[in-house]
Amino acid sequence: MHRLQLFIHRSAPVPLRSTSLYSHLWQHARFKTQGPTEQYGLKRFSTAEATVETSDPARMREKTLTMATLNPQVKAVEYAVRGPIVIKAGDIERGLQQGVKQPFTEVIKANIGDAHAMGQQPITFVRQVVALCCFPELLDSPTFPDDAKQRAQRILQDCGGRSLGSYSASQGVECVRKDIADYITHRDQGVPSDWNNIYLTTGASDGIMSILKLLVSGQGRSRTGVMIPIPQYPLYSAAISELEAVRINYYLDEANCWALDIEELQRAYLTAKEHCQPKVLCIINPGNPTGTILLIFMVETVSNLVTLYLLELVYQDNVYSSDCQFHSFKKVLYEMGPEYFNNVELASFHSTSKGYTGECGFRGGYMEVLNMDTQVMAQLVKLLSVRLCPPVSGQAAMDVIVNPPREHEPSYAQFTKEKSSVLDALAHKASLTEQILNSVPGIKCNPVQGAMYAFPQIFIPPPAIQEAQSLSMAPDMLYCLKLLEETGICVVPGSGFGQKEGTYHFRMTILPSPEKLKVLLEKLKEFHLRFLEEYSQPEPQITSQGQHREMSKQPD
Amino acid sequence: MHRLQLFIHRSAPVPLRSTSLYSHLWQHARFKTQGPTEQYGLKRFSTAEATVETSDPARMREKTLTMATLNPQVKAVEYAVRGPIVIKAGDIERGLQQGVKQPFTEVIKANIGDAHAMGQQPITFVRQVVALCCFPELLDSPTFPDDAKQRAQRILQDCGGRSLGSYSASQGVECVRKDIADYITHRDQGVPSDWNNIYLTTGASDGIMSILKLLVSGQGRSRTGVMIPIPQYPLYSAAISELEAVRINYYLDEANCWALDIEELQRAYLTAKEHCQPKVLCIINPGNPTGTILLIFMVETVSNLVTLYLLELVYQDNVYSSDCQFHSFKKVLYEMGPEYFNNVELASFHSTSKGYTGECGFRGGYMEVLNMDTQVMAQLVKLLSVRLCPPVSGQAAMDVIVNPPREHEPSYAQFTKEKSSVLDALAHKASLTEQILNSVPGIKCNPVQGAMYAFPQIFIPPPAIQEAQSLSMAPDMLYCLKLLEETGICVVPGSGFGQKEGTYHFRMTILPSPEKLKVLLEKLKEFHLRFLEEYSQPEPQITSQGQHREMSKQPD
Repeated sequence: MHRLQLFIHRSAPVPLRSTSLYSHLWQHARFKTQGPTEQYGLKRFSTAEATVETSDPARMREKTLTMATLNPQVKAVEYAVRGPIVIKAGDIERGLQQGVKQPFTEVIKANIGDAHAMGQQPITFVRQVVALCCFPELLDSPTFPDDAKQRAQRILQDCGGRSLGSYSASQGVECVRKDIADYITHRDQGVPSDWNNIYLTTGASDGIMSILKLLVSGQGRSRTGVMIPIPQYPLYSAAISELEAVRINYYLDEANCWALDIEELQRAYLTAKEHCQPKVLCIINPGNPTGTILLIFMVETVSNLVTLYLLELVYQDNVYSSDCQFHSFKKVLYEMGPEYFNNVELASFHSTSKGYTGECGFRGGYMEVLNMDTQVMAQLVKLLSVRLCPPVSGQAAMDVIVNPPREHEPSYAQFTKEKSSVLDALAHKASLTEQILNSVPGIKCNPVQGAMYAFPQIFIPPPAIQEAQSLSMAPDMLYCLKLLEETGICVVPGSGFGQKEGTYHFRMTILPSPEKLKVLLEKLKEFHLRFLEEYSQPEPQITSQGQHREMSKQPD
Repeated sequence: MHRLQLFIHRSAPVPLRSTSLYSHLWQHARFKTQGPTEQYGLKRFSTAEATVETSDPARMREKTLTMATLNPQVKAVEYAVRGPIVIKAGDIERGLQQGVKQPFTEVIKANIGDAHAMGQQPITFVRQVVALCCFPELLDSPTFPDDAKQRAQRILQDCGGRSLGSYSASQGVECVRKDIADYITHRDQGVPSDWNNIYLTTGASDGIMSILKLLVSGQGRSRTGVMIPIPQYPLYSAAISELEAVRINYYLDEANCWALDIEELQRAYLTAKEHCQPKVLCIINPGNPTGTILLIFMVETVSNLVTLYLLELVYQDNVYSSDCQFHSFKKVLYEMGPEYFNNVELASFHSTSKGYTGECGFRGGYMEVLNMDTQVMAQLVKLLSVRLCPPVSGQAAMDVIVNPPREHEPSYAQFTKEKSSVLDALAHKASLTEQILNSVPGIKCNPVQGAMYAFPQIFIPPPAIQEAQSLSMAPDMLYCLKLLEETGICVVPGSGFGQKEGTYHFRMTILPSPEKLKVLLEKLKEFHLRFLEEYSQPEPQITSQGQHREMSKQPD
């Protein structure tokens, strides 16, 4: 009788089924001939020993992976944009679909910068080019314009086997990298961009993560510190948690339209130096969630002062205020002279998700990496190569964005019309949102100069704060939960982005259609007034005048 | 005169340009009015102090990020598939394009599993559906078949705003997850698959990385150990390096057609237990780079014995030997009974990159996660949410693969023809490669039963080994470099995948067209014979007979 040697994986004998398993296995091995190798297998096991014990099969094994053994870096990660309130919104939405009655008929998801989900239309030219790349038989179709075909052919020419299905180089398709370099040169009014410094990425998040990964090192007091704006886009804090870097908050100045405050940068830096090695400064321009566009002198001052590694996340195509202008760090560094332009380490990130295209699902993005040490550059390429390459369809979408139809080309008119329509709508919605929010007692919203979000401050009365504390939740989380439950509107509590102690906010997108946005803002206004009333400080013999007195106490 | 407070970022004063910068900045701030916020900015800085020193501007700042400060986990990462030899192949290729003369006219890239780059054609139906999803105007086009349109509409129905440009849920588009569950159920002959356990991923690599990330914890002797087959697909070793897990090699048995050796698993496990906490067992089936398909009793035995977390990377559509069959761990666990099926923690990974579609560039993939602790599952979703979602175009491609045309549908005939054509060609090339390699003295290749690679063992004469050592390179790296330089053929040294000490291999793909493959194999044969001759042990008075004697000493 042949027996098998067992693999003892615990100090206790392996609890197993009865020995009939072994004869079962043996029979399998004996009668399920699969060719010569089978015989090798049989020979291997014919002389081995077996130790078998039976035990309760239901308690056969404990889980390897539990909350106790989970990677603590993963436990530490938080990402509010798709956090608990969004999960709840999903549950409520599914309930509605199944006929559950709510005080509203639909959930309005204003939590995430997903333009198409809120009804924004794709830019025709982008989709034409990507479709042509995807199914080149369409190059013979008369329904596609020549300029789209020409771009598709150019991209495919640089793909292995002329196919979107080939892996590209890890840095991306060459002609796309070159087109991006030209685009940046044009954006910065002639400041030269080298395509060798351009990397395609799987959305901006991927690029940011890769660069941060390179930068994190050291132990204890020399552990890498990363300065992030408060409020921030929570990818930064999530990445810092995951990489076990040290988070260094620098507060934007809400009273001054979320200005970048140089003294505050200095304070944050000097304080951090006592317990870590600050190495990175993260900037988001226009701000997410703030919507504020950096003034040029802020860009200049930061560039001048900083020997940190600069990470710049841009929403450069989302600028609404006519008296604001986007200034890239790169252009400013160039204007400051070669000792800055050739020295300051800067990585700048952009994606197909924003702008006027809103192509989030394609996960297209790029980063421009300036003045990176050459040997480290090789390490970056090595790191990227493990994941092979970003999705080539996303690279194609990115190419169209940086290489749109020119004035003389057939698609120019329609493209320009669609682009203006989207940007005008966004500018209108930015302004509308700011106005309506500021008309609500207890809500104050800084100008939405750019990006896709509003981040109003909300007054939360002390009784609500106490209730939140009793429920072990942030007061703005309580606010947002009640907002969701009473109106179906899903926004993200300010605590998910960071805010000054004692202040409360939420972030909403300005992406719903103007009609839906008006509905949202009206409902929000009604909710907020109800909320203030519900959580007013209780007074004996409250008269209607008393209630008015109470509400008038709240700060503007 | 207004002065600015400077941000002291070193113990030494900041070396800066002269004070004219500050008047420059001040003027900028004063005259570049941008609205009310500008005034806020001015007010902020008017009373601040400045400390300025000038210094040599050229030595303004040291780099923050150098090899000395680079994350050591990144330094440790290696990925041979796109490693040094591939970089060199790229250089040579560019040289050829620029007219540099070589002993060959083209570089043949047999280093990476990129089918389209080697001329394999995309499956028409896949591209039709993805193009329709991308540009839904095509739904009105008579040139697209109804079954493609129906699938595209079904996918778009589940996308936000019916657009491929929306972020999907982090786990993926719902109908795609459901289709994948149905596909797996069918693959496993009725063993039920729950769509809630299905996650779309950005290629298989992304899924593997996510699961490994969850599993890595502990310090010192309780640090997570990950068992990987030797030879292995080097994503595993790269991930282990990056996550600072402990690598545990278990050697596949080359003499037995790369069989999975249970005693060897046990040896590896018990040895590792002394210095780490082995928690994970990685399996690749069919093997990469080995091409071997696991026998069912091996799958059964591993399933029975293991309380480790099982990671199974599948190439299930690449099975060529008619006497071999793919057996999924899930099916085997099911057959072993509920105490196995409901307990063993298993994650299984698949992608659009392989099979008969070869859609690498779309970065499509999925994982099925069985018996994961529910709370940990929520943590996984949280982790995935930080990266928002996998590319939706890749999810669409994945959907078509798991939901191909059925027999009664219009595209069935063409689809089946194309699929068979690709798989037949691969089977033919697998067999051809094996035969020709085995006809070369000093090369021995196990049967290529599946996947896309051959991993022959090569005899490297001692003088070559010594030369390699003197150059501080692995002997098979020297071999591959010379192969590249003399023939233009790019393959990856076995040292990049792992091999038993004292043995040497290389991995080549079987993807070039049959004609090109024959050319490659012929050139390889000629090269190998030259190599053996060049590095023969030197003998005094070598006659032609002596040379033959020398060559006959080499093992088969």
